[in-house]
This record gives sequence, C-alpha cells and structure tokens, in this order.
Amino acid sequence: MELKEIVSSVPFPDKEIEKLAWAKLDSLTKPPRSLGILEECAAKYVTARGDIHASIQKPTVLTFAGDHGVAAEGVSAFPQEVTPQMVANFASGGAAINVLSELEGVAVRIIDIGVAADCPFPGVIQRKVARGTANMAKGPAMSVEEAEKAITIGIEEAWTAIDSGSTLIITGDMGIANTTPSTALYSVLLDIKPRDITGRGTGINDRGLIRKIITVEESIKINRERLNSPLEIMAALGGFEIAGICGSIIGAAMRKVPVVVDGFISGAAAVCAIKMNRNIAPYCFFGHLSADSGHKKIMSKLGVKPLLSLDMRLGEGTGAVLAVNIIRAGLAIMNKMATFDEAGISKS
Amino acid sequence: MELKEIVSSVPFPDKEIEKLAWAKLDSLTKPPRSLGILEECAAKYVTARGDIHASIQKPTVLTFAGDHGVAAEGVSAFPQEVTPQMVANFASGGAAINVLSELEGVAVRIIDIGVAADCPFPGVIQRKVARGTANMAKGPAMSVEEAEKAITIGIEEAWTAIDSGSTLIITGDMGIANTTPSTALYSVLLDIKPRDITGRGTGINDRGLIRKIITVEESIKINRERLNSPLEIMAALGGFEIAGICGSIIGAAMRKVPVVVDGFISGAAAVCAIKMNRNIAPYCFFGHLSADSGHKKIMSKLGVKPLLSLDMRLGEGTGAVLAVNIIRAGLAIMNKMATFDEAGISKS
Repeated sequence: MELKEIVSSVPFPDKEIEKLAWAKLDSLTKPPRSLGILEECAAKYVTARGDIHASIQKPTVLTFAGDHGVAAEGVSAFPQEVTPQMVANFASGGAAINVLSELEGVAVRIIDIGVAADCPFPGVIQRKVARGTANMAKGPAMSVEEAEKAITIGIEEAWTAIDSGSTLIITGDMGIANTTPSTALYSVLLDIKPRDITGRGTGINDRGLIRKIITVEESIKINRERLNSPLEIMAALGGFEIAGICGSIIGAAMRKVPVVVDGFISGAAAVCAIKMNRNIAPYCFFGHLSADSGHKKIMSKLGVKPLLSLDMRLGEGTGAVLAVNIIRAGLAIMNKMATFDEAGISKS
Repeated sequence: MELKEIVSSVPFPDKEIEKLAWAKLDSLTKPPRSLGILEECAAKYVTARGDIHASIQKPTVLTFAGDHGVAAEGVSAFPQEVTPQMVANFASGGAAINVLSELEGVAVRIIDIGVAADCPFPGVIQRKVARGTANMAKGPAMSVEEAEKAITIGIEEAWTAIDSGSTLIITGDMGIANTTPSTALYSVLLDIKPRDITGRGTGINDRGLIRKIITVEESIKINRERLNSPLEIMAALGGFEIAGICGSIIGAAMRKVPVVVDGFISGAAAVCAIKMNRNIAPYCFFGHLSADSGHKKIMSKLGVKPLLSLDMRLGEGTGAVLAVNIIRAGLAIMNKMATFDEAGISKS
C-alpha cells in the first residue's frame, strides 16, 4: 500500500463501544466519574480497539534513534557522538527506558533509523535511511522521499510489534539536538511562534537558548517554499526518528492499536500524524507533559492534558512507558470492580 | 509511650543519605535531574529510610472508615448507610481500592474506627472508638480523649503493618460527609477561608455547596474556644477516620517509614500531623491532587506538588496507591541504571 492510502484508511472508532464503556463505568461502586482520567483511559482504549473486553497485551515501546545536521549550529548541551553511545546503552539494558520498561512489563525495540555513526549492537534493529539529516538551517533536513521512507519504516515497525501480539504501542526517541527540529515542526504545524515554545532541551544555557530560537526561525524561513503539507513539513524540518515515530503512530492507528505518545519529540510526530488524518487522534494517549517549557503551551493548544506531569525531559519513551500503568489501572477498574447492584449499595 | 512522646520522637532524616542519593542519581546516563520527580522520589524515600539501599517492601494501604454527625446537615450526596455498605464492599474485594491495590501489589487493611453501624465483615479490623462523631455544627465532633484514642489506634495500625514487614504506608479513608470536616480542618490549620476551599465532594449540587460552606463556617464558629492545638482542632472538627490516618502518619514517621498520603481527606490528616511536629513532613509523599476544587489551593499553600493529578475524587486511598508506582520507578532508576563511566558515554 502507498503511504497516502495507509494514512487515509485509519478508521474512526466505533462510538457505540464508547457508550457501552461509559454505561459499564457508571454502574460501578463509586460516585459517577469519580475516578476521572482512569475512566477516560478505559473508555478510550476499548473504543479504539473496537472491543469492550479489550485488554493490554504485550505493550511495546519503539525507540527510534537518529541524528540531526542542525546539531552543527550548537543547539544541544551534548555532542552528537552521544546518540550512538546511548543506542549502545539501550542495547546493553543500562538506560532509563530499559529500567522503566522492565518495571512496567513493556518490551523494548530500538531502531537505528538515521544515526550518523554505525550502531552494530546486538538487538538494535538496523533500518538506517541515512547517516543523519542535513542541517535544516541551511536547507531541507530530508528529501520528501527520505521522509516518506522513514515514515514507512515506522509503520512497518508498528505492524511487526502488532503482528507479534502487541495491543499497545509506546513511542520513544533518541537523537542529540532533536528538540530543535521538533520545535520547528510544532511551530509550523500549529502556527505558534518559535520563541514561545523553545526550551532548554537537555540543558543549554541562556546563550544557547537564543541560538536555538534563531536557528528554528532561520530553518523555517529558508524552507518556507517547501512547507505545503504535513509530509513536506516533516521532510524539511523533521528528522528520521521523528518521521519514524510519526509512522509508528499511523501504522498502529490503522490497525486499531492505541499509542502512548511520549513527551516533546514524540508529540511533534503525533501532531504531524494527526494533521495527515484527524481520525488518528482517538488512538493517541499523550503520556507525559515534558518539563521542556513549550510543551505545556503546545498541549493546551491541542486541548490535551497528558496523563502524567513529572518534570521529566529525557525522552527515550520514559514518560509514556510510565503512563501505561494509568491505562492499565483504568481497564482494571472497568473489568474488576463490583457494580452497585452486585454490592447492594444505595445510590445517591 | 504517651502520644506526645511519640509525636516528639519523630527524627529528622539524615541529610548525609540525601547527599549520597543525589550523587548516585547524578552519575547515571541521563542529563542531570532530567527524570525530575522520579529522582526526587528516590532521594526522598532512601533519605527517610536512612538507608541508601532501601527498597519498597510490602506496601500497605490502611483504609480507615468512620461516620460523621455532620452528615445530618445534608452536606453529602450519599446517605450515611453507604459507609458500612462500602466497608462490606472493601471486605469482599469489589471496591476501587481493592482493584487498584491488587494491580500495584499493595496489601489492603480496612479498619472500622468509627462507623455508625456494625461492620461484622470478614477481614475488617474492629477498632471502633464510637458509633460516628457528634455533629460538629452543634459542638465538638469528638472529645479530646476520643481523638487521642483514634490517633493512637492509627499509630498502632501503622506499627502492626511495619512489624509485618511494610516499608511504605499508604493512607485511605471512607466516611460519608468527610470532605466537610476535612475542609474545616484545613481552614483552621492553614488559615484559609472555608468558601475558598469548599468543593462538591462526591457530587452535591449548588444548594448543597452553599449549605456545606455555611456548615463549615458554623462548625468553626461554635467550636472556636476549643481550637488551641492540632489535637484539639482534630477533636472539634475532625473525624475518627481522619484522626486514625493522622496517627498512621505519625506512627510510620516515628519508625522512619515513608507514607503516601491520598487526596483531600488524608491530606487534612497529614497537615494535622505535620502541625504537631514539622519533622513528619519529610516522610510524606502527597500522592494525588484531588479533583475537589479546594485541594489545589491547599497543596500550593503547603508548597507541595502531588505526584499524580488524574481528576480523581474517590478517596479510599486510590490516588495514593497509584502513586506508589512513581516512587518504585524512581528507586528502580537509582538502583538499576548504568552510570556514565560504566556505559562509556561522553558528558556535556
């Protein structure tokens, strides 16, 4: 199937399932809606799955890694060599995403989709489109063909996880400098000024912050003729791992598998996917509000309240993996609590 | 030991352990402090335990149930008979607290400390001080002796759990109308006007809300001569389950066992405990920001950001039990992640 076909084939979830879910939730021994977001998560999950009895099986985090030509502008606190070093750390199980995924019973799949260096580490899935993007401050980060290829890889990786039994996809990223392209994507896709949402990423100083804002502004300016569709915007201002995440969201939604979107970088990929087809939104749980300062503004512009807000700003999928527990809790409530009738309790 | 002695014997945690914890956390393969609240939880937990290697063993939720004479003022959406019905539901495992505790690996202990009706259900711990409090809008809810007895029961129940191996206590409540005394306690202990923090509890309408505000104001007024110490305030305006929770926090802190405080009701008990001895604060995790409208103001007055904010307003300990996972995640990060040296990763 062509990318366009896949995107347009994402079905809007069945509203009848949603009604059944709320009827069930409202029959349980608690004041109506008193478990708030837990109940919303349960209703959203089973509605997306199209199955009132759906449960979470083999949740899988797909952490895509890529490098960014724009790192040359000095927009990150860490050198680019950290990207492959962190991929090695993922492969050997020592990173935050490994530790949290083990705790939450989540499988980890690491995909090299565009790291500048080789990543020949056991367990790393080799899907490199190119050795890092071009510097978006000088021209497009990727060609449209490259972006399409990276999105397609994301779709395929989601399908692979789903084919092996996963009913919940979690997104993650690794890529030095990748808050910069993400800021550019949000800015163009949501029509927000870069200065309003540019943050310190993993920890740049005041001078670095100003340089980052200018870099984003220049990148948008130099690419302005190319920003005519979500795909072209992703190509000009995105990155391989961001496009991969975007694809994984599209691929999961097409198969009616919900996605837990991580923080700042994954959020930019999700916005791009939703701009391609609004039907994708009901499949997206926003897992975590990033400590990166612009994320709150962006989420409120989207009308979204992320499940967790823990002042985290690491990426990798860490916030989203923790949020899985909230969705699990909602489903446990829906499936295991007694009803008022069963318990013989007076209603208000 | 006398209550006063127990309260004053709570030790302030060892700051040297805290320094060690942060040194460990800052050596891990992530930008410093980029896991935000997870790292704070890990540092706080091991510091409270006085042991850099501390882990969570047998977490136990103590859910105290009691009734309130002030229910006669029509301040709740549910009739008082629901308190024992819900205790029966806890005993048979059908309530939200049972479902969430099972999911999180938390043991549940249900204590009848002051329900108006008998609660002869298997597994319910029988520690009834009296059959509900008196109506605080007409005079003191409890005598000082009763309040002291309920606090002491809370201390003993915490110790029982700790003696059987628990290193984390979680607080919970059940008691129809208990947001009303909790509002009165916050108001007096923190010097906030009742109207600024009175919410709809489990779901009263506009008229009920006005009645609730007036009831809180009248209760404070009629008891004003009695409000000279945290213990006397608890007696005049509290409740048996609130005093029990207050005691469980004191008892845990004295044994250097951290406590996850649930939402609106447990928070009032925690504020009372901390007013008795400020050393208790470092042992308290505030687990959940209640959807009840005043709780946000109260938490910000305390300078506290609860771990979760999920629009829940059920009590029972549900929010706090979910928050255990956040503390577990922080400890897993501290104990299992690779350091920069181990992973051979470049620092910024």
